[in-house]
Amino acid sequence: MSAIIYALTNPIFKNFVFYAAASTVKMMAMSLLTSRKRFAKNVFSNPEDIPLGNKNQAKVTFTDPDVERVRRNHLNDIENILPFVVIGMFYVATNPNAMLALWHFRIFFFSRIFHTIAYQLPLPQPSRAIGYTIGYLTTISMAVQLFRALLK
Amino acid sequence: MSAIIYALTNPIFKNFVFYAAASTVKMMAMSLLTSRKRFAKNVFSNPEDIPLGNKNQAKVTFTDPDVERVRRNHLNDIENILPFVVIGMFYVATNPNAMLALWHFRIFFFSRIFHTIAYQLPLPQPSRAIGYTIGYLTTISMAVQLFRALLK
Amino acid sequence: MSAIIYALTNPIFKNFVFYAAASTVKMMAMSLLTSRKRFAKNVFSNPEDIPLGNKNQAKVTFTDPDVERVRRNHLNDIENILPFVVIGMFYVATNPNAMLALWHFRIFFFSRIFHTIAYQLPLPQPSRAIGYTIGYLTTISMAVQLFRALLK
Repeated sequence: MSAIIYALTNPIFKNFVFYAAASTVKMMAMSLLTSRKRFAKNVFSNPEDIPLGNKNQAKVTFTDPDVERVRRNHLNDIENILPFVVIGMFYVATNPNAMLALWHFRIFFFSRIFHTIAYQLPLPQPSRAIGYTIGYLTTISMAVQLFRALLK
Repeated sequence: MSAIIYALTNPIFKNFVFYAAASTVKMMAMSLLTSRKRFAKNVFSNPEDIPLGNKNQAKVTFTDPDVERVRRNHLNDIENILPFVVIGMFYVATNPNAMLALWHFRIFFFSRIFHTIAYQLPLPQPSRAIGYTIGYLTTISMAVQLFRALLK
Repeated sequence: MSAIIYALTNPIFKNFVFYAAASTVKMMAMSLLTSRKRFAKNVFSNPEDIPLGNKNQAKVTFTDPDVERVRRNHLNDIENILPFVVIGMFYVATNPNAMLALWHFRIFFFSRIFHTIAYQLPLPQPSRAIGYTIGYLTTISMAVQLFRALLK
């Protein structure tokens, strides 16, 4: 293992970078969606934000169901995508089978896309729960392989 | 410093990976604990989740004290464990003393385990505050050493 | 690209480490500010924390405007600084122009400092929105360059 793991010349790292960056950008998109919902519903979280909205209708509230749904989705991304990035980064250091690794990255990314669609439409449960669980187990699978490699 | 820092052949990085991954998995476990509390108390955060619970009792609420306690613990992990991972990753690049580094990683990890126990039982204060502060200062200690190395 | 990217001998990585660590420490400082506001206003989030405050006035509440303002600022940091760290780390792997990279890191860091000042004073809008948007676009700019390099 004298080759450089963390370089784009390593196809496993390159694939990880692609899916980890795509997942992170997807998570960042939740901020835009929150903004759009805030302006559509004229609800803000700070008094000084009121002049940004429609003057007569804008108000401060933390209970608008549409805005809070996007916020919960965003927080759920933070709770799942960032651990994927951390565990995935370390998993790459174990020099896993390239195809196995690629499928972990792909399945995670698409499970989170599906989770977001299921959350925002919303689709009836257990749609969102399935998307969530697949992503969660993908990260756990990488963690298990990582700990096996570390403790060997 | 021509050796490769970020490889499992570097024992400092290997130790960091172990404790950073263990801390991240511990953080992920808070999701399972939230789920368990939601089903035990029949409280959910989305109307479409109601059919997953006990049909006659399940309701949407954001004020259940047991569920919210786990949620606060989870968010506190996010606020502390992810900075530890970031600062720790960079700290490893400074090629610190191996034993000093290992103790930083160990103390951080066990301070967060203790913090979680103190939060969930709960233990009387200042138990949780002590667990929190030890973890926080461990990350700050690595940050101070990092900035010293960067500005040298 | 046989040189080691992720080592402090690479000035692009070194600059990234400096600004990413500075942004992370700034984010961690929000915890101290939350604590300070909690003790100043005697408002806590757990019943067992009451004895830490002024005994006759301390109470549990989640609606104190000063504390919640700091909390929102902290969460906004998490939503923006951690994606910057992830995308920036990967962007460094593309071996970008050193000066271009440095300005991305600098602009991001100072936009978040300005965002925090605008949030906490608070400054009238669109001050905070401008600070936020500049930081957001800096990360997106790095992501665009990253995907271009990956798909080349």
